[in-house]
Formats: sequence, structure tokens, C-alpha cells
Amino acid sequence: MNNKNKKAIILLSGGLDSATVIAIAASQGYLCYALSFRYGQRHERELISAENIAKTNNAAQHRIIDIDLAQLGGSALTDKNIEVPKQGDDLENKNKIPITYVPARNTIFLSYALAWAEVIGAFDIFIGVNSSDYSGYPDCRAEFIKAFEKTANLATAAAIEKKGIYKIHTPIIELSKAEIITAGTKLGVDYSLTHSCYDPTPQGKSCGKCDSCRLRLKGFKEAGIKDPIEYAI
Amino acid sequence: MNNKNKKAIILLSGGLDSATVIAIAASQGYLCYALSFRYGQRHERELISAENIAKTNNAAQHRIIDIDLAQLGGSALTDKNIEVPKQGDDLENKNKIPITYVPARNTIFLSYALAWAEVIGAFDIFIGVNSSDYSGYPDCRAEFIKAFEKTANLATAAAIEKKGIYKIHTPIIELSKAEIITAGTKLGVDYSLTHSCYDPTPQGKSCGKCDSCRLRLKGFKEAGIKDPIEYAI
Repeated sequence: MNNKNKKAIILLSGGLDSATVIAIAASQGYLCYALSFRYGQRHERELISAENIAKTNNAAQHRIIDIDLAQLGGSALTDKNIEVPKQGDDLENKNKIPITYVPARNTIFLSYALAWAEVIGAFDIFIGVNSSDYSGYPDCRAEFIKAFEKTANLATAAAIEKKGIYKIHTPIIELSKAEIITAGTKLGVDYSLTHSCYDPTPQGKSCGKCDSCRLRLKGFKEAGIKDPIEYAI
Repeated sequence: MNNKNKKAIILLSGGLDSATVIAIAASQGYLCYALSFRYGQRHERELISAENIAKTNNAAQHRIIDIDLAQLGGSALTDKNIEVPKQGDDLENKNKIPITYVPARNTIFLSYALAWAEVIGAFDIFIGVNSSDYSGYPDCRAEFIKAFEKTANLATAAAIEKKGIYKIHTPIIELSKAEIITAGTKLGVDYSLTHSCYDPTPQGKSCGKCDSCRLRLKGFKEAGIKDPIEYAI
């Protein structure tokens, strides 16, 4: 595709979704600027994954920004007083917002991506949101992304000066987990580098019981591909 | 007004605009949750002002969040390699984005405000943007605020669950600096607590020459009120 050396910001968590997304962006010719966050998440393990994934995709740069979501609380992923659920209940109830939802997380992540994009002169931002398997997160839906994109094009100097139009790319938003894994495998994504578990063991093994592990295991099973990471169960 | 004890997030920089805004919110009956940021700005002095202003407005809480905009660079306010202009050139040219513009700053600030609002169950966010005196900042315009408000109402669990509708209040967006000072003075704002200078002396005195000082001095002059802070000139 005709994006050779066009700069793009890739939000990279270290999970399998964003690992697939950076591979898609790289395969489209973009020069990838990977952006990760240390946000008081319990699973710092993710950031090591993000670093390795950025490297294998020849990212031009990888930045990790410290953000203090723990100070605001309100989520099992950032608040040590809320337990990570292990029963899969949240997965069963499509209408309930899961307790692992982090308030306004993607809005904050996209805002930083936008700031960096403006500084380096990029107009393409990739985010691995996905609404088909799991619709509980409000900020993973296409209508949210579209609203943010509109905001981005009003928020910035580059937009005012008509240097370009910001586009938020969501290449996996409508794929099932199995479809994501199949697409990534075709692009050569090394899923052994990725981390998905909300509550890994101190040795870094995935619990196999949290919602994120359940979705991942189901996805690999449906894709007919063996999950290369280690589980504690 | 009928907002008695309704929670509101107030973005509080410590400058005279946000000092006026928190006084307006308090006068409307809101219970104020003040939010400030330590973002690698050269003028840490602002945060001391923010703290004092929060106290005098009986804020229920005041949080200061560390954010690392300096790592992204691109502005005279966060990047030590870019000089703060002192000639007033940026003020003369209404079509130019000033070098003191911080990429995506208000988008990032509003995102954190939204996260905190969601956690404490507030739906009202106050921000002291102002587009009449100085139109160079893209993220101070009403159309940006409106786009962000729409994004907020799609981004959050509370919005999905129809617990309320987020409103971004911009009570001074159309006021001139003189009108802001006049309005604040009527509400009893103590402007001696506020700080505006982009480049204060080590002793904390305002330079009197940067764009922010120029606007402030002009505003007090036009309002016919004496500016109670000390200047180095």
C-alpha cells in the first residue's frame, strides 16, 4: 500500500489485539511510533511484552508514558481494593459494564496519541479496540472512535492549519478474537510475546481464569491455533 | 441555582481564568472537585496558586495529577529547548498558532476530568477556556468543546447506563479578559492568589513581558482594577 514511511502512532498494550494491529500497520507500509502506558495496571508484565513487540515490528520509536489512573480509582485493573473477577460472569452478561473497565481509559490514551502525533507530524493513529467479542467497554465502540476523531480534528494546531486530517484506524474492531489471531498469524505475529492476563502469577504466568484469559483461550481454540504462552492452570 | 451539592469537576490551573471559573461554579451551588496537572510546565508556581484557590472556594477535593507532556515536547511551555517569546508577536498575529500552545493539552486535561467525573459520579465539568481575547489555541474554541462533550457521552459507562449526561461548562469562553476580571471581582475572587506568567523569576515574580502577562495586565487595565500581584518590571 501507498503509506511507505508515513508515520503512524500505534497504541500498544502488549496484548494480542494491539500486537496484531501494529503488524497490520507495518504491513501497510506505515513507520510505526509505538505508544504504551504505565497506568497503575496490576500487570506490568504487559509493558515488557509491548517493548518486545515494538522491536519485532521495527518501530521507529517506542515510548512508555506514566499516567496516574490509580489515583482516580474505580476499576479492578487500577484499584487494588477491587478484586479481578475469575468466574467469567462479566463475559456472560453483554449488557453489564465489566468491573475491569477503566474510566475514560481510551479517551486518555487517544489524547496522548494525538499529542504525540501532532509533535511528530503524524496523522494516523492505530488502536486495537474490538467490539465484537465483548461489547461491555463503551470506549471500544465505533461511534466513540468516530466522535474522538472529530474532536481530534478540532483540537489541534495541525488540523487548524490544514496540514492534514487525523484518522483513527481500528483495523480489528469488527473481528472476533479467532479472526484476529488468524489474521495476525498470517502476518507472522509472534503471539508468544503477547500478554493478556489481568492477574498473572508472580512468575508471569497467565491465570487462565480471568475474562481476558478466557477470551484469549476461546479465540485460539476457535482459530484452531495453539496458544504459545504458559498458563498457571 | 438548583445545583446544591451537585458534584462538579473544575479544571484549575492557578491562573486567573480558572480562578474565576471555580468561583462561578461555587456560586452556582456546585460542590467543587478541583483538578490540576503537573505537566512539566516551567511555572510550578501555578500549582501553589491552584492549591490556595481550591481552598478559598471550599473545594471538596483538590487533586494534582502528574502528566508527562515534556516527554512529548513540541511547546515552549513544556520543552526547555524552545524559548518563551517576550515580544508580544504571537499576540499580534491572530492567525498563527502560538509557540506556547501545548499539543492536545485540553483534550488530555478533559480526558482526565472525565475519568474522575465517572469515578465520583459527577456529570458537570468546568473549564476556563477563553476564545475572545486570544484565538490562537485551537482547543479553546466552542466547537472543540462541543465535540469533546459528544465524545464524553459515548466514552463512558455512566453515559451508556444512562445515569446522566456529561456537560462541559465554559462560563468565560466569550468574555474578554477585562470582563472575566470584573465578573470574578464581583464574586470576591482574590486575584492576588492567581498566577499567569509563563516565565516567572526564581523568586516567583511575574515577568510582565510574556503573552500571558501582557494579556493579564491589559485586562486589569481595561477593567479599571489594580492587578494585586507583583511584577519584575
